[in-house]
This record gives sequence, C-alpha cells and structure tokens, in this order.
Amino acid sequence: MPRIRLELEYDGTGYAGWQRQDNAMTVQQVVEAALERLTGTHTAVHASGRTDSAVHALGQVAHFDTDMRMDPNKFAYALNAFLPKDIRVLDSRQAPDGFHARFDARGKLYRYSIHNAPHASAIHRNTRLHVYRPLDLGAMAEAAAMVEGTHDFAAFCAAGSAVRSTVRTVTRSALKKDGCLIEYEICGTGFLYNMVRIIVGTLIEVGYRDRPPCSVLEALERGERKLAGPTAPPHGLALVKVFYDGENLPGKT
Amino acid sequence: MPRIRLELEYDGTGYAGWQRQDNAMTVQQVVEAALERLTGTHTAVHASGRTDSAVHALGQVAHFDTDMRMDPNKFAYALNAFLPKDIRVLDSRQAPDGFHARFDARGKLYRYSIHNAPHASAIHRNTRLHVYRPLDLGAMAEAAAMVEGTHDFAAFCAAGSAVRSTVRTVTRSALKKDGCLIEYEICGTGFLYNMVRIIVGTLIEVGYRDRPPCSVLEALERGERKLAGPTAPPHGLALVKVFYDGENLPGKT
Repeated sequence: MPRIRLELEYDGTGYAGWQRQDNAMTVQQVVEAALERLTGTHTAVHASGRTDSAVHALGQVAHFDTDMRMDPNKFAYALNAFLPKDIRVLDSRQAPDGFHARFDARGKLYRYSIHNAPHASAIHRNTRLHVYRPLDLGAMAEAAAMVEGTHDFAAFCAAGSAVRSTVRTVTRSALKKDGCLIEYEICGTGFLYNMVRIIVGTLIEVGYRDRPPCSVLEALERGERKLAGPTAPPHGLALVKVFYDGENLPGKT
Repeated sequence: MPRIRLELEYDGTGYAGWQRQDNAMTVQQVVEAALERLTGTHTAVHASGRTDSAVHALGQVAHFDTDMRMDPNKFAYALNAFLPKDIRVLDSRQAPDGFHARFDARGKLYRYSIHNAPHASAIHRNTRLHVYRPLDLGAMAEAAAMVEGTHDFAAFCAAGSAVRSTVRTVTRSALKKDGCLIEYEICGTGFLYNMVRIIVGTLIEVGYRDRPPCSVLEALERGERKLAGPTAPPHGLALVKVFYDGENLPGKT
C-alpha cells in the first residue's frame, strides 16, 4: 500500500497536543478524521513525535498508508479542504520505501519565542511567552552555548520520564534578538521529555541574573533536575523542522 | 481634568472594528468597559481613527479624560488587568495640553501582510492574506512606487464615501519579501475609506500580471473606482503607528 509523507503546520493553541487522547481534542485525531472523510476508511497517521498541549508546529512530519488513487501531492490540497484553518498540510508526497516519520527522524529543530517588553503582545499572545523583566542576553547566549555538544541531559528532563539513556547531542543552541522578540533555536539528534522547555526556563533565570551561566554546566554534570530551572510554558515553543537522511542538521551560528 | 494618551495593540479577529456599535463587539467598547471598571465612571475613549472589522493595530493611539488620581504610566498596567488578552495597552502617559488623538494625528503607517505560498499558514491565518498564485514582486514594487506623492485617490476610495477632498499625500509605499511573507508598507498624512485595502487589491492584480503597473497611474489620473482593483480582505491589514507633532513620517525606503 503506498505510503504518503505529510508536512504539517499547526497552531497548537486549541489542541491537547499531537497525540490522540480520549477526553481531549488533539491534532492527530483531527488529521485522521479529515483523512477518513477523504478516503472513507479510518487511517492511522504517524508523526515524527508528540508535541505537547499548546505547542505549535511549523514543519511536523507524518506518514500514513492508503489505497486511494490520487497524485501524492494532491493529498495536501484535499486534506486542507477538510481541516480546520489552524491545521494546514504544507506538502504531501510519496514517501521513500520503508519510510517512517518517527523512526527515521535524524534530528529536530525547535524554536522558542519570547516577547520581552513591559506589556504582553495582543497579536502574538499564543505564540510568544511574555517576559516583562529585562533579560541579560549576553549571559543567556553564554549559557545557551554550553548546551551544544553531546551531554547527559538528565537534569533537563521532566521527572518521572522512563528512558534508557539521557545522553543527547545538540548541534545548535543559539539566541537571536529583534526588538522585543527573542528567539531561541535548538537543534539536536533527539530530545528528552520537556527538555527544550526546561532549558528555556533555565536560560530565562540566567537572563534575570538569578543564576550564573556556568550553573548550566553544573546541572549538566550533576544530572539533577533540581539544579535546572523551571519548565517554560508551552505556547512559546514550536517544532520548526524534522530532519531525515540526506538532510544536514544546522550547526553553530 | 487630566487627559491620558494610550497606545494600544489589538488582534482585530474577534471584533467588529474599533468603533462602538449597537449589535457587535468592538474594541472601543471593550476598552471603555475596562476603563469603567477601573475608574467607576463611564469614560469615552477617542482613537486616532476607526479600524475595520478584523483589522489589527500594533500602535493605535487613543485618549480619555479622567479625574482618577493615578500615575499616568500606571493606567497601562491597570487597564491590562481588566482587558482580554487580544487587546493590550502598550503605553499610557499624560497627554500634552489640548492633545486630541484624532485631530492631532499628522500621519499613519499601515502594513498589509501576504502569505504567498501554495497552502495557507495555520499560525498566521488571522494576520496574513493567503495568496496561492505566484506574484511578480518586481511589477508590484513598480506599481507601489507610483502611489507615492500627492495624488487624487478617488479611484482608491470605497464607493459612497462622502469626503470633501480625495487628495492625499503618501510618503512611503513599498514592498518587502522574506520567504513566503510579503509585507506592504504605506505611510501617509491621511487615508480615504478602504484606500489601503483597495491599493493592495490592485497591487495583487499587478502581481498576477492581470494588469500592468502603469494601470495604477491611469486609475489615479482618471479617478474612477472601477479602474482600481478589488478591496483586499481586512485581516492582512494592521495600523502600525500614528504620527503626531514632532514625529517624522517615514519616507521612501
């Protein structure tokens, strides 16, 4: 049965994340419902990974198998006709043989957006975290750079996660400022549960000068969750891109 | 009675524009309701001008008079506590003597945002017009530049508007492209009803190569509404800034 690869953008505000749940609306079930309306059969859609409630995606990748005879790139148009406007298929194509959106993912790029100003933004309220206290960007950039490389990220993982190894490789961890907007980009081969949001929560404490940049190194070395900062709220986070074979992960800026 | 000057950002999606109406929720009445909760008295809030339904503002200016004894810059914080998150006061200060948000306005800067890609954007669906056909940016820029200067904009005014003169001065009319995002900025000393949206509708037709850039000159010269393009939808438009005495209007880029 032919396998189709989708690229999806969604505004996570109205959804309890990607993964299907019994008592809450999720992106996966809305996409599967659209696909069922299109094809007439219930079809599972597999993403590169979950996104949490209120987290956005600019380039989530997913796949599904279908018998429906349709030009692969037409699925994007057909699905968009059935999807709500806060979920869009940006691209659909025939997947390479044996392709799996989750198991074949070689890396991911996330972006966390902060609106650093005395008052919040009305227009970007669902996509940028409002931080009203001034932030020391230099200290934050110094701390962000310490995350690059291969480390044991145990301190930056939600308590209670059961994973075999907490070692991950981060190829880029960098900050950019444009007026009130601060964007933090992190790219790596894999991420622990809440890892990006805990790193951001820690960087914000560094920005407040409540902790020195080197405290990030200490947290990495000692691996204790309590040495890292709080988990930043979800709405500032977006999954920007998923990388597969043949695509290079962005490195240091 | 002291007069307070406000700067406001709002997401116009959920509102029938700025101006108070009987049968629809508008930004003005929500701001006045917040002010009434704060001060205990109904107080009229006067803006620099109306914005239409679904049009946004990044820097709308308004004023009101109040007897309430409060540090003028504290009104922003106090009002934000009573306002919904899609309306934010960015700044409040004592207005100069005799200041009037509307009568003293010397010019306005508007921005119209277009998402030019095969599929719409989920995240920017309420703030950018989706145009899926390719656009000839060079032709659009040529046409945009023709709007600069002092002209009779009769052709670019909603039919049925009753204004004494349709002559206006545009100090900047320019396009910028960043990936899928096309931003059109127009700054002028005054605008006719729907003028920006009709200019944008015309520029899009130029971008489609459905009309030559010089057709804009012809419309300006002949002053007939039917020679200009359609009125572009409201949600791509934002009032960026209002200029007062002592502030220079941006010129050609």
